[in-house]
Amino acid sequence: MTTRQDAQALDARDPLAALRAQFTLPEGVIYLDGNSLGVMPSAAPARMAAAVQDEWGTGLIRSWNTAHWIDLPQRIGDKIGRLIGAAPGQTLAGDSTSVNLFKVLSAAITIVKAGGDAQRRMIVSERSNFPTDLYIAESLARQHGFVLKLVEPEEIAAQFDATLAVLMLTHVNYRTGRMHDMAALTRAAHDCGALALWDLAHSAGAVPVDLNGADADFAVGCGYKYLNGGPGAPAFLWANPRNLARMERDDLWQPLAGWFGHAAPFEFTPHYRPASGIARFACGTPPVLGLTALETGVDTVLAAEPLGGMAALRRKSLALTCHFITLVEKHCAGHGLSVITPRTEGERGSQVNLARGEGEGSEGSAAGAAYAIVQALIARGVIGDFRAPDVLRFGFTPLYTSFVDVWDAVEHLRQVLESGEWKQARFNQKAAVT
Amino acid sequence: MTTRQDAQALDARDPLAALRAQFTLPEGVIYLDGNSLGVMPSAAPARMAAAVQDEWGTGLIRSWNTAHWIDLPQRIGDKIGRLIGAAPGQTLAGDSTSVNLFKVLSAAITIVKAGGDAQRRMIVSERSNFPTDLYIAESLARQHGFVLKLVEPEEIAAQFDATLAVLMLTHVNYRTGRMHDMAALTRAAHDCGALALWDLAHSAGAVPVDLNGADADFAVGCGYKYLNGGPGAPAFLWANPRNLARMERDDLWQPLAGWFGHAAPFEFTPHYRPASGIARFACGTPPVLGLTALETGVDTVLAAEPLGGMAALRRKSLALTCHFITLVEKHCAGHGLSVITPRTEGERGSQVNLARGEGEGSEGSAAGAAYAIVQALIARGVIGDFRAPDVLRFGFTPLYTSFVDVWDAVEHLRQVLESGEWKQARFNQKAAVT
Repeated sequence: MTTRQDAQALDARDPLAALRAQFTLPEGVIYLDGNSLGVMPSAAPARMAAAVQDEWGTGLIRSWNTAHWIDLPQRIGDKIGRLIGAAPGQTLAGDSTSVNLFKVLSAAITIVKAGGDAQRRMIVSERSNFPTDLYIAESLARQHGFVLKLVEPEEIAAQFDATLAVLMLTHVNYRTGRMHDMAALTRAAHDCGALALWDLAHSAGAVPVDLNGADADFAVGCGYKYLNGGPGAPAFLWANPRNLARMERDDLWQPLAGWFGHAAPFEFTPHYRPASGIARFACGTPPVLGLTALETGVDTVLAAEPLGGMAALRRKSLALTCHFITLVEKHCAGHGLSVITPRTEGERGSQVNLARGEGEGSEGSAAGAAYAIVQALIARGVIGDFRAPDVLRFGFTPLYTSFVDVWDAVEHLRQVLESGEWKQARFNQKAAVT
Repeated sequence: MTTRQDAQALDARDPLAALRAQFTLPEGVIYLDGNSLGVMPSAAPARMAAAVQDEWGTGLIRSWNTAHWIDLPQRIGDKIGRLIGAAPGQTLAGDSTSVNLFKVLSAAITIVKAGGDAQRRMIVSERSNFPTDLYIAESLARQHGFVLKLVEPEEIAAQFDATLAVLMLTHVNYRTGRMHDMAALTRAAHDCGALALWDLAHSAGAVPVDLNGADADFAVGCGYKYLNGGPGAPAFLWANPRNLARMERDDLWQPLAGWFGHAAPFEFTPHYRPASGIARFACGTPPVLGLTALETGVDTVLAAEPLGGMAALRRKSLALTCHFITLVEKHCAGHGLSVITPRTEGERGSQVNLARGEGEGSEGSAAGAAYAIVQALIARGVIGDFRAPDVLRFGFTPLYTSFVDVWDAVEHLRQVLESGEWKQARFNQKAAVT
C-alpha cells in the first residue's frame, strides 16, 4: 500500500467493508480513537428514544418486566461473552470497570486467603497498566495486607513463585498497544498456585479472546471502547465457574453485596445470601439507559459473526495497524516519532502508539510536542489521542476504519510535521478520557 | 375533601399545579409509584437525543470537554445538594446507591477505626431498612470485624452507648413511609461518639432535608425515585467536610479508589493520591448518558424553587397523603387493610403504605391478597406497588400528583375491594424494583 489508490483497492475487496454502514460517522472526521470512545451505532438514537419515551415514559415501573429491564445485565453479558470466549451465564454487564475490578480482585484475594498460605500475598501487575486498575489494586492490597508489585513487561516472567497471589494484567496495554499471551501467562500463574485476572478494556471487540480456553480466573472490561456502548457505558465482568463454585462452597462473598446480587432480591429479607452463578457479582439497580445504549454497540460487533467474527475482525485490524506503521515510517521519518507498539503481530492489539522522543527532528519538550501534534491533527479532523507524558495513540477499529482512512491519516500527520503547524497548538487540555 | 368536586377545587387552587406540565404522563394512568420510578420529564427525550446524536455521535471523544461531560458528577451533585441542605462541592452523582453506600460506610468505619477505640464496633440499623443497605453493611461488618445490629424503630433510642460506631438509617422507611428525626438522631449519635449515616432514597426531592443543619456525617440517595432521573439512574453521595478533612489529614481512603477520584487523573501516575474534597469519592468513568437523564429529572424538582421549593412541595405532599389516608379509611373500611404509615405529619414521608392483615374482611393469605389487590389496581391504570410480604405502597409526588388523582385512586381501590375482582389476579410477578 504505497498510494491512496492502493488503499482504495484494499477497501474495495475488504470483506468487512459493509459493517461500516452500521455507524454514523461525523462528516470530515477520520476517527482513530475508538479505543477511547467508540463511534455511535446508527441504531442508537432510535433505540434510546424508544427506551426513554416508550419504556420509561409510557411503561414506567411496569417496564422492569414488560421491557425486560430486569434481564439486561445478563442478556448483554451473554452477548459480550460471545466475543471473549465465555459461555452463557458467565458474564455480567453493569457498573464501571473500576467497580467491577474491585469486585473480582476482592474475590481473588478472598480465594487466596481462604487457601491458607500466608506467604502468598503478592499482586503483580505492570507499571504501565492503566492507572485505575493499579489504584484499585493498591487500595485492596492496603486493605488486605497484600503487596502490589509493579514490574516492566519483560520482568513478568520472573514473578512466578510461591509469593504470587494474583497476576493482574491488562491484556492489551493502553499506552503501548502491546498484547500479552493470556493463555501462557495464565498457565504460568496457575503452575505456581496463583490466580490470573485480566482486564479486557482494549481487547473486547478488538482482538480474539478466549477466557475459557485460557482458563483465566477473572476478567473485567470496558463498554465504551471497541464495544461502542456510548460515553461512560456500563462495563462487564466475568468469572471462571470454578471460582464461582469455590465461593459458593466456602461462603466467600464479593464485598459489593448489593440487592441485585442476592439469591432472592424481591423477598426483601434482611440478611444477604449470594445468588448462585455470576449474579453474585451484581450489586445495585442496573443502569437501564446505559445498558440499552451498550447493547446497540455490542450488536455492531456481533454483526461480524456471519462474516467470520472476531477472527475476521482481527485479520483486518492487523492489516490496518501494519499499514499504518509502514506508512508512518515511510512518510513521517525524521521528526522524532518512534513506533512503540510491537511489530510482531501476536504481540499487538488494535492500536498503534507513537512516542515523541527527544531525538532527531524533535523540538520543544517531548510531552508538549506530542500533545501539540495530536491537537494539530484534531484540528484537521484526524482524531487520535495523547497520553502523558509523550505518547500519540491511534486506535483502529476494523468495524468502521477503512484503509483510505489510514492513508489519509498518515498524510495529515506528514503535513502537520512538515509544515510545523503543530507548533501553534497550545497546551489547554482539560481532560483526555481513555 | 369528601367529593370529587372537593378534590377538583383543591387542584384549582394548588400553587404547584403548573409543575405537572413538566412531565409526560401516560394516558389513563394514575401513577402512585414515583417512589419507585419517577415519571419522565417532558424535556428528557430531546435532551437524550442531543446527548446521543450530537454529543456522542458528532462530538465523540471531544465532548468530554466541549459538552462538559467531565463536569457532570459534580454539577449534578451540586444541583441535588440544593435539595438536601448541602453546600456546593459536597455532593457527587454517579454509581448506584449500593456502591455509594459501600464507599461512605467504609469511610465511616475507617474513621471510627482510626479513633482507636476497639470497643466501638457496632453498626446499628433498622431491621426493615431497605435490604441492599443491610446487605452492604453486613458485608462491611464481616470484613472489618464490626457487628451489624438490626433493631425496631422504637429500639433505636436504646442504642446510643460506647459501642455504637455508626448509626445507619434510611430517613424515610421504604416499607412503612415512616420518617426519622434526622437532626435529633444525629445529635444522639454524636453525643455518644458515633457517626450518623443517612440514606435519602425516599427523601431527596420528596421531603425537606438539611444535611448540614443536622450535621450528618455521610449520606447517599437514589436518582430514579423522586428525582425522576430515569430507570437505574445514577445515585449520589454526600460527605460532611469535617469527615473529608479528617480523611485528608490522616490519609484515610475510601476503598473504591478509581481514577476519577485521583488528585490528577490525567497524569496517569501509577500510585493513588486521593483528590481533595468530595471528588475523592469518585471511582470509574462517569455514566454520561445516565447522568444526562438524571439532570433533566433533578431540574424538574429545582423548578419548584421559585414557588417555595421543598417547603412548598412538602406542604402539598402532606395534604396529598393526609387526604389519601382519610379517604381510604372512609371508603375502603371493612376489607382488612390498615394504614401503617404514621399519621403524625413530622413522622411521615411522601408515601402511604397499607398492610393487608388477616382480620376483618380479609380472605386468602395476606401476601397473596396484597399482591392481587395491587395487580387489580394496575389493571385499572392505578399504579402503586407491592412489597413482600403484605404491603401495598403508594407514593405521592407533589410535582405531578393531583388531588383528583388521589380521589380517583381511592375510588378504584374501593371498587376493586367491593367487587372482589382482585381475587382473579394471579401471582405472576417477576420483579418489583424499588
